[in-house]
Amino acid sequence: MVKHTVFMQRALELARMGRGYTSPNPMVGAVLVKNGRIIGEGYHERYGDKHAEVRAIENATEPVAGATLYCNLEPCCHTIPGKKTPPCTHRIIQERIRKVVISTIDPNPYVSGNGIRALRAAGIEVETGILAREATLLNEAYFKFIQTGIPFIHLKIAQSLDGRIATRSGDSRWITDETARQLVQEMRRGADAVLVGIGTVLADNPRLTLRIGNGRQPYRIVLDSHLRIPDTAHLLQDEYAEKTIIITSPDADSGRRQFLSEKGIRVEVLNKNSNEFIDLGELLEFLKSQGITSLLVEGGGKIFTRFVQKQLYDKLSVFIAPILIGSGKEAIQDLHIERLRDAFRLQHVTFRPVGHQILIEGYRDIQATFGKLAEVLECSQDSLKKLEQSFS
Amino acid sequence: MVKHTVFMQRALELARMGRGYTSPNPMVGAVLVKNGRIIGEGYHERYGDKHAEVRAIENATEPVAGATLYCNLEPCCHTIPGKKTPPCTHRIIQERIRKVVISTIDPNPYVSGNGIRALRAAGIEVETGILAREATLLNEAYFKFIQTGIPFIHLKIAQSLDGRIATRSGDSRWITDETARQLVQEMRRGADAVLVGIGTVLADNPRLTLRIGNGRQPYRIVLDSHLRIPDTAHLLQDEYAEKTIIITSPDADSGRRQFLSEKGIRVEVLNKNSNEFIDLGELLEFLKSQGITSLLVEGGGKIFTRFVQKQLYDKLSVFIAPILIGSGKEAIQDLHIERLRDAFRLQHVTFRPVGHQILIEGYRDIQATFGKLAEVLECSQDSLKKLEQSFS
Repeated sequence: MVKHTVFMQRALELARMGRGYTSPNPMVGAVLVKNGRIIGEGYHERYGDKHAEVRAIENATEPVAGATLYCNLEPCCHTIPGKKTPPCTHRIIQERIRKVVISTIDPNPYVSGNGIRALRAAGIEVETGILAREATLLNEAYFKFIQTGIPFIHLKIAQSLDGRIATRSGDSRWITDETARQLVQEMRRGADAVLVGIGTVLADNPRLTLRIGNGRQPYRIVLDSHLRIPDTAHLLQDEYAEKTIIITSPDADSGRRQFLSEKGIRVEVLNKNSNEFIDLGELLEFLKSQGITSLLVEGGGKIFTRFVQKQLYDKLSVFIAPILIGSGKEAIQDLHIERLRDAFRLQHVTFRPVGHQILIEGYRDIQATFGKLAEVLECSQDSLKKLEQSFS
Repeated sequence: MVKHTVFMQRALELARMGRGYTSPNPMVGAVLVKNGRIIGEGYHERYGDKHAEVRAIENATEPVAGATLYCNLEPCCHTIPGKKTPPCTHRIIQERIRKVVISTIDPNPYVSGNGIRALRAAGIEVETGILAREATLLNEAYFKFIQTGIPFIHLKIAQSLDGRIATRSGDSRWITDETARQLVQEMRRGADAVLVGIGTVLADNPRLTLRIGNGRQPYRIVLDSHLRIPDTAHLLQDEYAEKTIIITSPDADSGRRQFLSEKGIRVEVLNKNSNEFIDLGELLEFLKSQGITSLLVEGGGKIFTRFVQKQLYDKLSVFIAPILIGSGKEAIQDLHIERLRDAFRLQHVTFRPVGHQILIEGYRDIQATFGKLAEVLECSQDSLKKLEQSFS
């Protein structure tokens, strides 16, 4: 069991190397073990490329027949139009792998236990639930999207201990230190798109670029009902301008709209709701239409508040700097909550130090985000076994 | 060295048993070790009672000559009017203890290295710095008061992740869970007095009592400029009413003042400052005059804000519940901060889970609070050795 964990840890490590490249596919790593030694490793390197299991088989330095395969996700077993790779289960069976150890099922409706069933039907021993929690959290965005068709929405807040994201004069650079901002880069790399409100653009003129590795630059989305974005904004001027999408409303000046379009900037018009705010339901539909499966929301307070109030987010990450600002820009504004029992309570809360900050993270509703896998986060021990049995 | 740590850990454990009873003295524990076994233990049980070192000697089950004494604080060596016990150094020398291991010097001006010097002059080996950090934090209130004559001020905030201590309608019970509230009981037990503003009394009618152990009920101080406290307040009616002190201003109705006094309630009149708030400098002088060496400030937001703004606090403990409230009562209100670099930054920040909350704690200025011992918190390793040398 200890060894299982060690090898699965390695598979997860490999899986993470795909961060920023695999979407809309999950991050998957695979390790082949024979006589207690690793004889092959691989990971899903990029959307459309070979799956981790096949990579590990092809990279093996010894014959793989009789080996044990460790993999953080149930191997795929389906062929549908548009799928770019053959089913991994076929290959595993064909290579005469003796045993497959996986972390979690793949809740993709085409898989969802069918991969495990196919392997077992071929006489392969299958064990599940190893590091299931880590594996579930790793692919949070994939699990959300594959089960709901709705993008994974991640709110990232950098605030003072007293809940402010800027002084009252708007000074917000920097509440957090370089270590925290590096981690934000990681978050961006894992997202298909990042989003800010026009207030943030006007106050900070952010670039929202990926400054690490060679990950895919995510889309940069600005909610800007009245097209107030200035021509001088980095988002309109830098080398990733084609990755910028301005979401505006029918109220915006059509001349300005045309001007931006002629400059090659994408401007999308969505309806506003009764509160004069761009309708977030429409926004999510739009994201989906663009193949965006995960969104990192980076501010400001008005935007965070709207996503929280509409209960349209999956995960909240709050970097808390050990400073007091007093009255200033609030991370979260009015939620119309009168009674404490109506306050929004996060689930599966974790925290850890990041540089000088404390990073507190939680989910709005693990059932809504993780669906069939929510149980893994609730009671790690035998729950996945039970879960798996319900698919076998 | 490992053993040193083990025995000193035990001494600290013993010391903590005195919490709530030793003020204005420090909490001290002592362990006597011979041939690697503990042969005697003791702690300072109550102000005026015997010191830990003497207790350990008297409790010893074997002759103590030749033993090693572990003690979290430098033994006392002075006799001054009002001091209730003879110098421990005399007794240690007289009993022919071979070696004394201590965590930190006692910065009490009468001791401050003189205890160590006296022991060494008598040929006793002295080692310092073992678990110095833990020992320094344990007696934070004592170290502040003995060096400055100013009470140790501890702000305790229970807030949501977004920095609110109540909904906008005032609902605040309970933001934190029972586990956090138990820890608040411990904090109260360690304080000579607790303080709230009249707003908190009117909103929550708190008791501010000690519901654990048989610790000393701390004074209960209410800042109430206009004597708005109702006769029905628990603070005026319960069995600890004689522990309640209402601090009011010259503006208060004199009839009401007389009425409360006649009911046996202590009412003290202090001046207000230019902002129409009771002058905190005067308040601290008053506390000092009452022998109050440590104060736990429990709310509300206006009170917290004032202590922070005036830089009149030592420690801040923030329980963060993983909930979002949105606009409501803010833990910290206006601090007149425009630029981020002027924000108040906590020092020596630590954090840990407490029930469902995360408790973040830090100090305003460890130099101001710990004086000569601040260095211990800055660089734990050899700093105390150096510090000690400077006194030898």
